[in-house]
Amino acid sequence: MSIYVHGIGMTKFGKLEDKTMKDLLLEASIEALKDAGNPEVDAVFVGNFMGGSVYNQEILGAIVANDLGLGYVPTAKIEGACASGGIAFRQAILGILSGEYDTVLVAGVEKMKHVSTIEVTEAINAAMDNDSNEKHAGLTFPGFFGVLANRYFHETGATKKHLAQVALKNRENAINNPLAQFTKPATIEEIMEARMITEPLGLFDCSPTTDGAAAVVVSKNKSDIEIKSSAQASGPTQMQNAENLLSIPAVGESGRLAYEKAGLGPEDIDVVEIHDCFSMTEIISSEELGFFNRGEGYLAVEQGRTKPDGDKPINTSGGLLSKGHPIGATGVSQIYQITHQLRGTAVNQVEGAKIGLAQNLGGTGSYSTVHILERV
Amino acid sequence: MSIYVHGIGMTKFGKLEDKTMKDLLLEASIEALKDAGNPEVDAVFVGNFMGGSVYNQEILGAIVANDLGLGYVPTAKIEGACASGGIAFRQAILGILSGEYDTVLVAGVEKMKHVSTIEVTEAINAAMDNDSNEKHAGLTFPGFFGVLANRYFHETGATKKHLAQVALKNRENAINNPLAQFTKPATIEEIMEARMITEPLGLFDCSPTTDGAAAVVVSKNKSDIEIKSSAQASGPTQMQNAENLLSIPAVGESGRLAYEKAGLGPEDIDVVEIHDCFSMTEIISSEELGFFNRGEGYLAVEQGRTKPDGDKPINTSGGLLSKGHPIGATGVSQIYQITHQLRGTAVNQVEGAKIGLAQNLGGTGSYSTVHILERV
Repeated sequence: MSIYVHGIGMTKFGKLEDKTMKDLLLEASIEALKDAGNPEVDAVFVGNFMGGSVYNQEILGAIVANDLGLGYVPTAKIEGACASGGIAFRQAILGILSGEYDTVLVAGVEKMKHVSTIEVTEAINAAMDNDSNEKHAGLTFPGFFGVLANRYFHETGATKKHLAQVALKNRENAINNPLAQFTKPATIEEIMEARMITEPLGLFDCSPTTDGAAAVVVSKNKSDIEIKSSAQASGPTQMQNAENLLSIPAVGESGRLAYEKAGLGPEDIDVVEIHDCFSMTEIISSEELGFFNRGEGYLAVEQGRTKPDGDKPINTSGGLLSKGHPIGATGVSQIYQITHQLRGTAVNQVEGAKIGLAQNLGGTGSYSTVHILERV
Repeated sequence: MSIYVHGIGMTKFGKLEDKTMKDLLLEASIEALKDAGNPEVDAVFVGNFMGGSVYNQEILGAIVANDLGLGYVPTAKIEGACASGGIAFRQAILGILSGEYDTVLVAGVEKMKHVSTIEVTEAINAAMDNDSNEKHAGLTFPGFFGVLANRYFHETGATKKHLAQVALKNRENAINNPLAQFTKPATIEEIMEARMITEPLGLFDCSPTTDGAAAVVVSKNKSDIEIKSSAQASGPTQMQNAENLLSIPAVGESGRLAYEKAGLGPEDIDVVEIHDCFSMTEIISSEELGFFNRGEGYLAVEQGRTKPDGDKPINTSGGLLSKGHPIGATGVSQIYQITHQLRGTAVNQVEGAKIGLAQNLGGTGSYSTVHILERV
């Protein structure tokens, strides 16, 4: 069975003081449904991470069904840390493949800007294992990815400048994206000199906290955007269990599965959204996905190969770093951007893009989803 | 395609001070896997509601996969308020029907006894819509179901004694269940005179807060317990949108779909687990599921028809009221009890039980799942 994208919607990402989580969720959903021609919907899956802990709001699935008047349709919220959106998208696909549903609405949302940095950091740390000494010793996500960056520098010869080149590229992409959180130009010097978060990751190397939502309508009915494959993998939930700090195995495995199912390889992919929660993550994951050799992803950045006019454009949306990272929405917003690219209507449009890939990561590599879409 | 239950596991329900949420989750999962003959597992779904908000612990799917050494398998947490477990079970079924997975582990868990009543009440209220005035006006779940009970009394002639008969039956069932939270005998007078929670619901009419976990292994490989149908429906997320306070439409609709898919009717069901979050809920839902006429469910209770030796045994496990209600685990623990009944190994075994039904409710009727299982 083939499955297709029929509609996409996305709110502005950023600090959206006058909108509740529900407002954002409904806004993106209504836009996606309208874009799909307001079809009958058989189920709703919502990706969300911290609605319960910081906003005291669960039951987002039922809220969407109720407030949009979708009737008795089955709904659920899906959580897989920062991969919640990608996993929700995958559940929609499995639901259609199962024969239970013809058309499914997937939405992702997060509201993170109305609470203090400490509160949001604590909520994010729910994506670490309570039984690990790392969490209680004070490891944070910038800490984890900072360790990976230092190791990567040591092994490959990459430097902080290469991370800054990732951050700069994604900022330059975001400048053209009216829905992105950060659209103010930056220079390489400004990025290099920004305040340190966790050595060697400075402010521009870390994705921000963000309010926002995105939604996608998928169906077994034909459209011009086909979902060629959906894959998901798990990895270590603790850094101390990582066998190799230059690798995020869940990314590699989900990529391998996605290529195998689609009958495609990295060389076939025209445009990519990678989960750049940190600048370092984009480089490692670009290697995991087979776009570049191990330890050489930073050279591809240096050579401009990942820019919109390069041979492997990555994060033309601005990525998590500059488009923003409303956790539950991120994976869904990647599908939004790839769909626009394949329709030929994207910001930073890649000329003739026919096949796109979206990779969404959760935790310290605990979850990864990869979806490959093709214009047909 | 047919899908089967291969293994079941369940921890003690109650106040389990020396065990973490993860301990409980792994204990039930290991038992279910062992019961299934330790098969290779292709995916894991975890039902959980308040792990993030009261325990700062998400990523339960990845934790199970990692700690049990299941490898790269896809995992997710599923949230649908108190129906999280039933919806997780349904995702496993859809995953197998989709052709992506052969064998799936479903687990549900909640840890609720280590925080104050106020904290747990606030966490539970995340299952109401923040944008409704009811929530902010102070409506709680006992309040909601208390309103339903008063209306039911007014319309049908039922009294508080009928609610007490439900609570007494479920307590008497729990006495035989070593895994139940409340195994101390009670009398109808004690139940009638217990302290009021929300008029007319007294202490015994309300399900408790509970620590506990349950797990089930399902597979497309044949076993002697077949899942005949899986159905799910949504309903109003706000009481003010309920059209009829004597009805919980999501329960009726999920039941109707489940019967239709299975080619069965209420008359074919030998044993039932109903989501008795309150004594009143058991009666209304027993009508919604077609076991008794509208407004006559209380008479069936009075006549002893829902006892283990009656013609429609309901909640032979002790139900939520006395077995306990660890939110995310509840829907999965219903499958545990029904499977035992169909295997002929249950507490309060119903002689010759061949077909069983489990109904799991979330929120103020926001979610309902119904699963019908048959010994084949």
